[in-house]
Amino acid sequence: MTTRTEHDSLGPYEVPATAYWGVHTARALANFPISGTPVGAHRELVAALGTVKLAAARTNHDLGLLDDRRFAAIAAAAEEVRAGHLDDQFVVDVIQGGAGTSTNMNANEVIANRALEILGHPRGAYDELHPLDHVNRCQSTNDVYPTAVRLALLPAIDRLATATGALADAFAAKAAEFRAVPKIGRTQLQDAVPMTVGQELGAFATTLREELARLTDSRGLLCEVNLGATAIGTGITAHPEYHRRVVVHLAALTGQPVVGAGDLVEATSDTGAFVQVSGVLKRVVVKASKICNDLRLLASGPQAGFGELQLPARQAGSSIMPGKVNPVIPEMVNQVAFWVIGNDMTVTMAAEGGQLQLNAFEPVICHGLLQGFAWTTSAFDALRELCVDGITVDAAKLAAVAAQNAGLATALTPLLGYARSAEIAKAALGGAGVVRDLALATGGVEAEVLDALLRPETLANLQP
Amino acid sequence: MTTRTEHDSLGPYEVPATAYWGVHTARALANFPISGTPVGAHRELVAALGTVKLAAARTNHDLGLLDDRRFAAIAAAAEEVRAGHLDDQFVVDVIQGGAGTSTNMNANEVIANRALEILGHPRGAYDELHPLDHVNRCQSTNDVYPTAVRLALLPAIDRLATATGALADAFAAKAAEFRAVPKIGRTQLQDAVPMTVGQELGAFATTLREELARLTDSRGLLCEVNLGATAIGTGITAHPEYHRRVVVHLAALTGQPVVGAGDLVEATSDTGAFVQVSGVLKRVVVKASKICNDLRLLASGPQAGFGELQLPARQAGSSIMPGKVNPVIPEMVNQVAFWVIGNDMTVTMAAEGGQLQLNAFEPVICHGLLQGFAWTTSAFDALRELCVDGITVDAAKLAAVAAQNAGLATALTPLLGYARSAEIAKAALGGAGVVRDLALATGGVEAEVLDALLRPETLANLQP
Amino acid sequence: MTTRTEHDSLGPYEVPATAYWGVHTARALANFPISGTPVGAHRELVAALGTVKLAAARTNHDLGLLDDRRFAAIAAAAEEVRAGHLDDQFVVDVIQGGAGTSTNMNANEVIANRALEILGHPRGAYDELHPLDHVNRCQSTNDVYPTAVRLALLPAIDRLATATGALADAFAAKAAEFRAVPKIGRTQLQDAVPMTVGQELGAFATTLREELARLTDSRGLLCEVNLGATAIGTGITAHPEYHRRVVVHLAALTGQPVVGAGDLVEATSDTGAFVQVSGVLKRVVVKASKICNDLRLLASGPQAGFGELQLPARQAGSSIMPGKVNPVIPEMVNQVAFWVIGNDMTVTMAAEGGQLQLNAFEPVICHGLLQGFAWTTSAFDALRELCVDGITVDAAKLAAVAAQNAGLATALTPLLGYARSAEIAKAALGGAGVVRDLALATGGVEAEVLDALLRPETLANLQP
Amino acid sequence: MTTRTEHDSLGPYEVPATAYWGVHTARALANFPISGTPVGAHRELVAALGTVKLAAARTNHDLGLLDDRRFAAIAAAAEEVRAGHLDDQFVVDVIQGGAGTSTNMNANEVIANRALEILGHPRGAYDELHPLDHVNRCQSTNDVYPTAVRLALLPAIDRLATATGALADAFAAKAAEFRAVPKIGRTQLQDAVPMTVGQELGAFATTLREELARLTDSRGLLCEVNLGATAIGTGITAHPEYHRRVVVHLAALTGQPVVGAGDLVEATSDTGAFVQVSGVLKRVVVKASKICNDLRLLASGPQAGFGELQLPARQAGSSIMPGKVNPVIPEMVNQVAFWVIGNDMTVTMAAEGGQLQLNAFEPVICHGLLQGFAWTTSAFDALRELCVDGITVDAAKLAAVAAQNAGLATALTPLLGYARSAEIAKAALGGAGVVRDLALATGGVEAEVLDALLRPETLANLQP
Repeated sequence: MTTRTEHDSLGPYEVPATAYWGVHTARALANFPISGTPVGAHRELVAALGTVKLAAARTNHDLGLLDDRRFAAIAAAAEEVRAGHLDDQFVVDVIQGGAGTSTNMNANEVIANRALEILGHPRGAYDELHPLDHVNRCQSTNDVYPTAVRLALLPAIDRLATATGALADAFAAKAAEFRAVPKIGRTQLQDAVPMTVGQELGAFATTLREELARLTDSRGLLCEVNLGATAIGTGITAHPEYHRRVVVHLAALTGQPVVGAGDLVEATSDTGAFVQVSGVLKRVVVKASKICNDLRLLASGPQAGFGELQLPARQAGSSIMPGKVNPVIPEMVNQVAFWVIGNDMTVTMAAEGGQLQLNAFEPVICHGLLQGFAWTTSAFDALRELCVDGITVDAAKLAAVAAQNAGLATALTPLLGYARSAEIAKAALGGAGVVRDLALATGGVEAEVLDALLRPETLANLQP
Repeated sequence: MTTRTEHDSLGPYEVPATAYWGVHTARALANFPISGTPVGAHRELVAALGTVKLAAARTNHDLGLLDDRRFAAIAAAAEEVRAGHLDDQFVVDVIQGGAGTSTNMNANEVIANRALEILGHPRGAYDELHPLDHVNRCQSTNDVYPTAVRLALLPAIDRLATATGALADAFAAKAAEFRAVPKIGRTQLQDAVPMTVGQELGAFATTLREELARLTDSRGLLCEVNLGATAIGTGITAHPEYHRRVVVHLAALTGQPVVGAGDLVEATSDTGAFVQVSGVLKRVVVKASKICNDLRLLASGPQAGFGELQLPARQAGSSIMPGKVNPVIPEMVNQVAFWVIGNDMTVTMAAEGGQLQLNAFEPVICHGLLQGFAWTTSAFDALRELCVDGITVDAAKLAAVAAQNAGLATALTPLLGYARSAEIAKAALGGAGVVRDLALATGGVEAEVLDALLRPETLANLQP
Repeated sequence: MTTRTEHDSLGPYEVPATAYWGVHTARALANFPISGTPVGAHRELVAALGTVKLAAARTNHDLGLLDDRRFAAIAAAAEEVRAGHLDDQFVVDVIQGGAGTSTNMNANEVIANRALEILGHPRGAYDELHPLDHVNRCQSTNDVYPTAVRLALLPAIDRLATATGALADAFAAKAAEFRAVPKIGRTQLQDAVPMTVGQELGAFATTLREELARLTDSRGLLCEVNLGATAIGTGITAHPEYHRRVVVHLAALTGQPVVGAGDLVEATSDTGAFVQVSGVLKRVVVKASKICNDLRLLASGPQAGFGELQLPARQAGSSIMPGKVNPVIPEMVNQVAFWVIGNDMTVTMAAEGGQLQLNAFEPVICHGLLQGFAWTTSAFDALRELCVDGITVDAAKLAAVAAQNAGLATALTPLLGYARSAEIAKAALGGAGVVRDLALATGGVEAEVLDALLRPETLANLQP
Repeated sequence: MTTRTEHDSLGPYEVPATAYWGVHTARALANFPISGTPVGAHRELVAALGTVKLAAARTNHDLGLLDDRRFAAIAAAAEEVRAGHLDDQFVVDVIQGGAGTSTNMNANEVIANRALEILGHPRGAYDELHPLDHVNRCQSTNDVYPTAVRLALLPAIDRLATATGALADAFAAKAAEFRAVPKIGRTQLQDAVPMTVGQELGAFATTLREELARLTDSRGLLCEVNLGATAIGTGITAHPEYHRRVVVHLAALTGQPVVGAGDLVEATSDTGAFVQVSGVLKRVVVKASKICNDLRLLASGPQAGFGELQLPARQAGSSIMPGKVNPVIPEMVNQVAFWVIGNDMTVTMAAEGGQLQLNAFEPVICHGLLQGFAWTTSAFDALRELCVDGITVDAAKLAAVAAQNAGLATALTPLLGYARSAEIAKAALGGAGVVRDLALATGGVEAEVLDALLRPETLANLQP
């Protein structure tokens, strides 16, 4: 491999001649051979880094800190980073020490060398255009990196919101399809009282739709950035006007309501927004996991289980049991949920571990969150397309089961009291007959009253 | 012990003659000998149960389902429960199976027997006034219990908000006191650039104050209740007008913006609000733990540590090392934080484990949350009174340390560039002199410019 | 309240005149008003503190560091602490800063004042016998406290082992009772292939019995103590012979294979044994929670569920649904499991947070572990007595269900291949007949072969 | 892309013509587009699958269930899988529903098609040699997959043990290098009593070496496999001799003490071994994280921190602060630890979520564990090579600091008592002189005694 020699404060270092990245990135590559996943795998993060660098360059140009020629080249390179043309140059491992310094350096070097190329200079000609003195001007990793992570999370949240909304819609459509199909509801896994399949699936739609507001809410904290804080929040080395101006550029570039944090010292060390977003994501997956547990349970059988829902067959279920079809899609979602809950613990520990003016563990927070949002989004799309959309039920069977259930006795308590209703329930369970006939035999209630009371729509309190 | 005999569907059972609680509670006592902590230990929960029972009684009276005499007695007994006069009658273990049924039964029985007493009847005379047919009328554990837990959390949240605000104020007062005391800021535990003690402590105030909005936000989801849903959300056995009306009474009794959930089936099985509140509480303690880690670090020494802050001595620190004083209050807060983070995991698993139309594990969610809020509130009060209010610093020593730090070289980068500044920093670290003198010796910058640049207020970007 | 005045390095402080505890304890009471649970609630811990103090006194006496008279008094007082006569004097909150110093001081003061009483002196007459100079001689909190926590865990582990063994035996007895009752096994909640109820319940017995070895193993690390390390492991202030000798006394007093740690500096800061024990406990509850999930599922119904097992009714299940009986005991066990898993997270964070020569967070580790073992032990006893011992099944119904299940087709694959067996399974599911008849109809297998193959004992591979 | 048509019970499906994998794998690819990481990324898992398939084929051949020709082809293909030649054919996502069925099917198909190729048949000619009827003969996913995961973990554990041992050796070498360098020890971040750098770093070596025994222990449970259990542990479809024989082949092929589980029903659903291994791994990273916290703290400064250790500079530390060098390697290790702790939570939830005769969530357990072991191993190697091996200290400075520390007063307590020693410590802290001189001034101790007592080797109790 042909190389070029670059220098940093530790001395000279060989870098592949064709790489846009330079010495800092090269050292980081050697230092962090952990996950094998490069930063470039997180498209949103690379795009956000490009956006931050572009906003900074525009501000520096406005303030006379960057001449027209260099600005034009840097801006063009940053636009390429935003667009994804240079993702393969973001090679540092997602698990890295240094609070994101290596990621920021990677961005600085890629933009500098691409800008040099645009200007007709060879890579590494940093006398012409320097990764730190020009690309990173008025910046520090400590404001660039958390700002970029925040901006990266916004589209990740939006994509999950879209997937969540679509999944809720899919459940709502099935709820409408099975709106009046009676079934027995269950509490603590015991037969309880009647309801409809529509109510059950509709509850899934409702509970998922509630997440849209939480996801939207969580955007708010992320839009408050510390760009301009530089090293620790005091803005050292930055132009006095820089912070105010760069935020305006960021807002314009992203189309998001980005604002500057009020206390830049606090904002530079605080990872509370990430803890909060992680908590929001955790709530989403906890709900999804509960729903998938229910789907698997309701689809249990086909003969010796609940057997209420039929999930579409997606693959042969067993290497040994012919004809067996398993709920593989909900099972996958459960596992994604368990993973994301694990990531929340990682984020929690990383946030708690921050010290003094910086949290050195933001890279693992960033990876955990972006991975969590991406997996959950994919899982929800799969759940919707490959499972929920294809759910079917055997309405006649469900209705028959519901009509014979001893749980109907609950409906009698306002008429007969708890104690007598309990006797009827016991008799029904003992095989003495169905609840309606046993109630009638008590003589305590008229047939018409009973039949009105025991209509499935009435029992389920179905709104017309 | 004298006993009376009560009956339930499982048969007769002896109950202490003087107990207000009855057979259901007695069986639960035998079934759940786990933690030794009775439900009555959670004052807010008992009060909320009284409130729910009172609102239900009022509604049943309004709807003609409860006569004046019984209503008056039930209402009086419920008021006593609210006021805390009967806390010692709530004897069921906080760790209980049954989705809160035992707690609800405990409340029904206590209120029924106290009401019977008010009416001049002996305990257990349920023909006169029945725990289920009268006290629990139009209700199910499945709407009473989650509603009560939600209402119980509101004052718990408010108390934590008060404690958090006061703690933030205490940090702010100290920040004002040490507003202009220069010190060296640190990132990744390495000396970074100058700041002031006021900025550092002020960041603690800021980050805690941010929690007030999150705590207030979390009240919103809790004010949406499912009372009237009865068993599974269909309102079976309840009067058609009941749900609408009982919520109005609840709002009036609590003075809170209580509203009915839109989808009662969803609301009866969903524990999302508890997951969210637990996440909010977790964020609070993560921040507090980070702050206490910092306090302990800044107070490390007294000779061979950072030695920047002096925390007030609260107790002799060691059974062996004379004169040693340890940061015991922050250490206690750290441990509370670790405990609360553990509770969040418990809440998460309990929420994920809910099945179909109910979450059977709400009792452990309830205990985890109420315990977490109570401990955190106590810990914050202790941190404020016993530690933060008494923090002192040695301003002269801090200023001297800051002035000699090689980190000042960062301020030179806009003038001299990154590479030359790095050389100055290296020289300063090597003992060649302080940054100011080394910079002057380069000839690249005038003395007046340097001295203006290196004024502590300027370096810290201190707003006048 | 009458008080006496005591002094420490912070000055004078009033202590209740009748209290055996003194100034250090009094300050700790004021400093840690958190959980309301005193150290004395952990009987094993108080006993272990008494044991450690007794072993230390014996060693000091042997070495000539403690005269006969004081030794006799201290030894007598320490025996009373061991026996539980002074539990109410251990008043410091279980959640405390200071790495256990307050607990150690509490023990020193209680023993000193009780010893003074024995010697005929008033409380507080420390010139005669001093909590630190005599009771704590050659000791530090940093070796006393972790040693006591380790010793306290040994009986806690043993009690859980006993409860676990008994629970396994209960499952084994039920497995024997239902040894040959055929049923359909399930994988991924889908009907799979035949087995027997005995095999299913027997697996619970097996999996719990495996825990006995893990629990026993975990005792090993705990028996390695750092007593004699004093402050940081260098044994400063202790007699050179002290460490070697005190361990011998500890072993004799406890009857346990207690040994001294090889590297006392490591042993004083390391909490690895606690992390390990917590992990062992977590595995136990994960298994128990899985078993209880299964019990609840197998008992689901009674009509519209799996309905395979009947759990004994322990209490009326519902405040609204007459006749409903819920699996409250397994639900309680699930919640204990979730709690213990949360505690494991607390222990993990506390262990990770240790710094340099000590872990200041051992008190929360101690409380989390002792609580977890106690709750789990109680929960297992309840599960056995109140649930497992009373399990019944409807053998005829189970056999009938198993005989009709399409899953029998799996048994045909060695004869007919996977593809043809799948067709038979599909036909059986479609209602075309039972697997036996459909297989016979293919002509590919003789009736006698089929019938031998499909005998329940053969299908289940039941060992005679 | 050219395709071939394959069929399964769901119908025909197009598969890339050149793929060794077939229809089951193809459907799984469509079903699980989650992480983007294919099963083939886990080299150990693919190798273990090859091993299991080879052992099964040998056993089937021995038992006359597989003819010579097919056996030879299958065996050759399985050997290629073991050797890693077909890793790129293991394309199913690591996050998958179905309890590992897709992974097992992937293996069956790859081996079948490669065997067909060896035999001169085209891919998909399953009439000649079938993925299920021949390759999977006497097997089920439910015994193949957990067996393979267990075997895959063995080398993963061994590699971590090697890395852990080497890291411990590195610390031990440094401990020897700085054996007698005095320094002040700290408890609760406060100056405590003297020790040596060798003792401090030696404790890291000791604590890591203890992990070797835990790692080795954890191998035991993994060597107990359920191969031969088939679907649920009853061995349905397998030859009666199969289980006993296949385990012998497995042991021979792996060189490991592989044995069959005693209760195959239990062994098929139980994931306790994985919970245990995850706990062992968690303990390793908790210790490593504590060590790295200490390294970062001891290296804090260089001027305004502890400044006791110098870690080798690995990269320029800051994009803004010239000359700053950060502890990036320990920071990376901390983050790996947080990640692994998160994975342990994932494993815990997945294990708890198993139901009845199988745990459907083993794929996420497998991925979490293999990832955790791999990352930790890489992190430890990096920590050793890039950090620990290059640690240096300034011995003279450390000795001077230690000699002036007020903590030396502790050494006086056996001579002067706790109270008088405390006064000396206070005076020393107040600047009245060093402990030696202040003690001498009391007149209570001779100079020679004092000087002997205060020799660094004596204070540190350094063994000659």
